[in-house]
Amino acid sequence: MSSINRKEFIKKSAAAMAGGIALSYGCGNAEEKPSAAVSGKTYEWVLVTAWPPHFPILGDAAEKFAKSVEVMSNRRMKIKVYGGGELIPALETFDAVSQGMVQMGHSASYYWAGKSPVAQIFTAVPFGMNTTQTYSWLYYGGGLDLWKELYAKFNLVPFPAGNTGGQMGGWFNKEINSVSDLKGLKMRIPGFGGNIIQKAGGSAILSPGGEIYTNLERGVIDAAEWIGPYHDWLMGFHKISKYYYYPSFAEPTGMIELIVNKSAYESLPEDLKEIILQASSAVNNKSLAEFDAKNTEYLEKIKNETRVQVRQFPEEVTAAFKHYASEVLGEIRSKDELSARILGSYSKFQERIKFWAEISDKLYYY
Amino acid sequence: MSSINRKEFIKKSAAAMAGGIALSYGCGNAEEKPSAAVSGKTYEWVLVTAWPPHFPILGDAAEKFAKSVEVMSNRRMKIKVYGGGELIPALETFDAVSQGMVQMGHSASYYWAGKSPVAQIFTAVPFGMNTTQTYSWLYYGGGLDLWKELYAKFNLVPFPAGNTGGQMGGWFNKEINSVSDLKGLKMRIPGFGGNIIQKAGGSAILSPGGEIYTNLERGVIDAAEWIGPYHDWLMGFHKISKYYYYPSFAEPTGMIELIVNKSAYESLPEDLKEIILQASSAVNNKSLAEFDAKNTEYLEKIKNETRVQVRQFPEEVTAAFKHYASEVLGEIRSKDELSARILGSYSKFQERIKFWAEISDKLYYY
Repeated sequence: MSSINRKEFIKKSAAAMAGGIALSYGCGNAEEKPSAAVSGKTYEWVLVTAWPPHFPILGDAAEKFAKSVEVMSNRRMKIKVYGGGELIPALETFDAVSQGMVQMGHSASYYWAGKSPVAQIFTAVPFGMNTTQTYSWLYYGGGLDLWKELYAKFNLVPFPAGNTGGQMGGWFNKEINSVSDLKGLKMRIPGFGGNIIQKAGGSAILSPGGEIYTNLERGVIDAAEWIGPYHDWLMGFHKISKYYYYPSFAEPTGMIELIVNKSAYESLPEDLKEIILQASSAVNNKSLAEFDAKNTEYLEKIKNETRVQVRQFPEEVTAAFKHYASEVLGEIRSKDELSARILGSYSKFQERIKFWAEISDKLYYY
Repeated sequence: MSSINRKEFIKKSAAAMAGGIALSYGCGNAEEKPSAAVSGKTYEWVLVTAWPPHFPILGDAAEKFAKSVEVMSNRRMKIKVYGGGELIPALETFDAVSQGMVQMGHSASYYWAGKSPVAQIFTAVPFGMNTTQTYSWLYYGGGLDLWKELYAKFNLVPFPAGNTGGQMGGWFNKEINSVSDLKGLKMRIPGFGGNIIQKAGGSAILSPGGEIYTNLERGVIDAAEWIGPYHDWLMGFHKISKYYYYPSFAEPTGMIELIVNKSAYESLPEDLKEIILQASSAVNNKSLAEFDAKNTEYLEKIKNETRVQVRQFPEEVTAAFKHYASEVLGEIRSKDELSARILGSYSKFQERIKFWAEISDKLYYY
């Protein structure tokens, strides 16, 4: 979308919002009223993502989701997907859907810490549950109901809709042998990971994805976290110089969300609601499966075709990260009643599932 | 369904099959011809399961799947679900769907070892990949295409449609301290697990679920494998006497399948095909999430409310199991060209994903 188109859209959106009408990209069927499923009424919705346009795996997942909804509904529901910045800036996804400028967003809850710090929990918790366990908490441990309660305040309905799996901890220009190696470290790392690095004596730098490579290359930063082997490779980090590549200390999973404007969602007939539920749900293990396959392939390339050293943090450093993580979570927990309930539910579930994991999943790495 | 109804159904089925017509439980719309999605034609299909009627989690999943398809299709597709034995015996699910007596089955591929030993691979592989890794292989490592190739020979289309997660190794009336403790052991255990126990000098006994409790209680068998803490608790094994409860040595995952008669499937319009695909796919992490939540809860009960001892096998025993497992897999691999390709693809993927797991998933048990 050109910047002229974008301006026109924003103008139209503002006018529509003032009038209380949700926008759609089509013209003929723009006004959406509740209607019986049998009416054959069509819906033309807009989905914006927090990913760069055509972002591997996650952007593709949003496109596939939209296509699937269209096919399942026999074209009664069409969803037009825009990458971040094509229609609205990536980090305005939450507001755009919340305010009804568009009906849907594909994003990650940790971008919305500014709205409510506890939102981040629904992406990943440092030293928290892994991907499988997190779904168990969401679907059968009350987690999803808490997420819905939190987002209802913003006129949003959340759906788990994808997963990156555990992410990598990042690229470091030196080996991390002790906690003192973190002192003064300038690292590009957002969210909880950034909080932990700050507490460990480093500086957490926020820079857009597009600037990380240059900042690393010029030595403006000493370290950077992005996603995992596949996406990191596409960023070219392995080409700059000799780096040490470390596992995650903040993201043992990476839950992706579909957010739907609550009023728009409630206007849908039952069949389209169910179609959105099932199509978004199906993205979960598909995207995780794709991340694991691609990360396997690209970690091999990093190992075999570059000078990058893959390392693990020494126990002392992991213990320190864990200590700082519990401080960070404690601060969030004490913010308000709902934050306390969410973290309380999460921690209890994690504590309980441990014994089962000890004699099941944890053993299955042959 | 009464036995009289069942006989009538079988008679009708035989007649229908002779005439090449797929049966449905309804009457009005029984003849299914390919038709445009727009026609509004309705489909009334039958799904039989390999589970006892109303079987917790898995039976529920089949019911929810059917309900979801009905809602998504705006009642253009209705699927009537029968538990094992209600319409046809559980272990005739494969044949019933393959021959077109019914259109769908919900089951596990390891029941069909008699059709093709390599089919078992698509449920679980002893010392093979865990649940997450298996999906990665299926969706992005060529596994699902191989599964489709295998089942196409039987006029079936397979869909991953649920997962038990890793199962428990079983209940033993004595502690297993060395391989010699397995000699002469009479254990109720089917599939690959049974093959391994045989090679270790024990006897693998096949008995229906309903007889395991009595056989254990009377000492007819020394050990028994069923599913995991939740379903095992429902069977009452913990009540009999003091038992030792061991983790899996054969099933690090438990993939569940939806099988659809290929001719019936191909007769569907695109929207219903997509609805079946997405609804079955969504079952995967939902059922796994439910198994993990329930197994967590019931393992706690086993630990806190019974005299059962939860143990792990000593390294020597695990090493022996692993050795025998590779013999079992080697025998299957050498059966025919397709079996060799399937196991070759599986093993290669497992070997490659290890390094990624070492610095990701394997670390996330805090």
